[in-house]
Amino acid sequence: MDFEDTHGARLKMALATIRTDVDDAFDALLPVPGDTRAPLVEAMRHAAIGGGKRVRPLLLVATSTMLGVSREAAVLAGTAVEAIHVYSLIHDDLPCMDDDDMRRGKPTVHKAFDEATAVLAGDALHALAFDILTDSSVSSDPFIQAELVRCLAQASGMSGMAGGQAMDMAADSATYDLPTITRLQQLKTGALLTASVEMGAILARVPHDARGHLIAYARDIGLAFQIADDLLDHEGDEDKAGKALRKDDEQGKQTFVTLMGAEGARAQAKALVEQACGHLAHYGEDAGVLCDLARYIVERDR
Amino acid sequence: MDFEDTHGARLKMALATIRTDVDDAFDALLPVPGDTRAPLVEAMRHAAIGGGKRVRPLLLVATSTMLGVSREAAVLAGTAVEAIHVYSLIHDDLPCMDDDDMRRGKPTVHKAFDEATAVLAGDALHALAFDILTDSSVSSDPFIQAELVRCLAQASGMSGMAGGQAMDMAADSATYDLPTITRLQQLKTGALLTASVEMGAILARVPHDARGHLIAYARDIGLAFQIADDLLDHEGDEDKAGKALRKDDEQGKQTFVTLMGAEGARAQAKALVEQACGHLAHYGEDAGVLCDLARYIVERDR
Repeated sequence: MDFEDTHGARLKMALATIRTDVDDAFDALLPVPGDTRAPLVEAMRHAAIGGGKRVRPLLLVATSTMLGVSREAAVLAGTAVEAIHVYSLIHDDLPCMDDDDMRRGKPTVHKAFDEATAVLAGDALHALAFDILTDSSVSSDPFIQAELVRCLAQASGMSGMAGGQAMDMAADSATYDLPTITRLQQLKTGALLTASVEMGAILARVPHDARGHLIAYARDIGLAFQIADDLLDHEGDEDKAGKALRKDDEQGKQTFVTLMGAEGARAQAKALVEQACGHLAHYGEDAGVLCDLARYIVERDR
Repeated sequence: MDFEDTHGARLKMALATIRTDVDDAFDALLPVPGDTRAPLVEAMRHAAIGGGKRVRPLLLVATSTMLGVSREAAVLAGTAVEAIHVYSLIHDDLPCMDDDDMRRGKPTVHKAFDEATAVLAGDALHALAFDILTDSSVSSDPFIQAELVRCLAQASGMSGMAGGQAMDMAADSATYDLPTITRLQQLKTGALLTASVEMGAILARVPHDARGHLIAYARDIGLAFQIADDLLDHEGDEDKAGKALRKDDEQGKQTFVTLMGAEGARAQAKALVEQACGHLAHYGEDAGVLCDLARYIVERDR
């Protein structure tokens, strides 16, 4: 087994483990009630369990593990971040937004249930995230709980994911230039990826002004992630992706691929990944999973 | 000026003051950015500023004032509760939910903007609420911040408001009996009203097991509030309400009025209000605004 294979195996195991852990956490958090709220909770389970790469929980867990935090607390905090990510997917897929029928290889929530249930399932997952973060299983220290909530609320709201989505929806997005697309994606995708890493640091009690390297790593992989997404949308396989592709092209939207060309985008994503790993150099081998994950982010086929 | 007039004047002033305070807080929290996120923030402002009775912020502020907390912190926490209430109104008004055109005397957000912006504005207000609660202006104590977040997240999610809304949407709601309608409304409306009072107690550092009287007050007025709402929907004035009425009747939905009759419902609401005020008896005159507010809740004409 050569160097590359060893690293691939380590990441493969980390991805498989986090998938099971997050599925188990959602399963325990979402028991189906014996009253007419059942369809709501079934819809939340449909969206939250058994799909997705779980990149955000793994980022959080790998960061906090590198910094010496117990896995159990980190998995639960990672599940809160994933709840935010899943709620945003449910709402983004709605007919009034991207109008998508398939997500993670399954019908979207408004297709499997109905639109009203999809709106509500997203809302309930949004609230669940903050409920999770103030549970004593995440941290018995309210200071940590409050910092986690602040970090995630800001990444989710108008100065983060929702703000990026609004920029994406704006009518003149077809004319965005590279700095504007970069800013848009830093909000839409980057904010939550950065929050995942930062929440790992918060769990490890890394003070605010000592998080610079970690946040720099997260920003670089956030951008690389989005460039890889644009490349996948441009040239990927719909079956593997589990969702419709080439929508950006159809809508004439500006993306990293239209602005830099496929080859330029690929080169930029790779450069960002190497730069990201460089930010973690002084953690040595402890940063192994985070570096593997960075490389996976640009090399994945879904 | 007789007894009734004095009490009416006190409440009138409290309602006017909280309206200004909450409007000012939202105005400061929601500056319109100079990029394409502007329509999102304009939509949030449209829904959040300049409308509504602000019952929830007043409940929170009156409770914490009664318990000796500074008004400034309480207004900000009350604004967080109102942000949750406003987000729920935006989503409830969507075409796939109640499909309403008017709210608080203005076009609903999806009418004034578009559906996608309405979904996103609701989501961004949802996140804003938790961002507010972890700000040091609400409390410098992370223990208080975390307790406020937990209380509000639970009131907003599947075990609270979202769960009640799901029960309301369930196809068989036409056959609900009185205990089920009571449970539904305790979740849909009651959870957030109770959270408003409980958050006032949290700000005042009232320990969990000493909040019984306050929570009993909140549960009673929550039920009275919904009975009054059903009465208004049945016999109110659409111009005063600022929204469409008689939708429950049209849809053949069971309400407190269909189950108890208008006279029975009115008597029950009044009995609940007296019972609510009884729970606060040992606070004497300090509970004045909370008792006035309880009476206003059943006597209001909008």
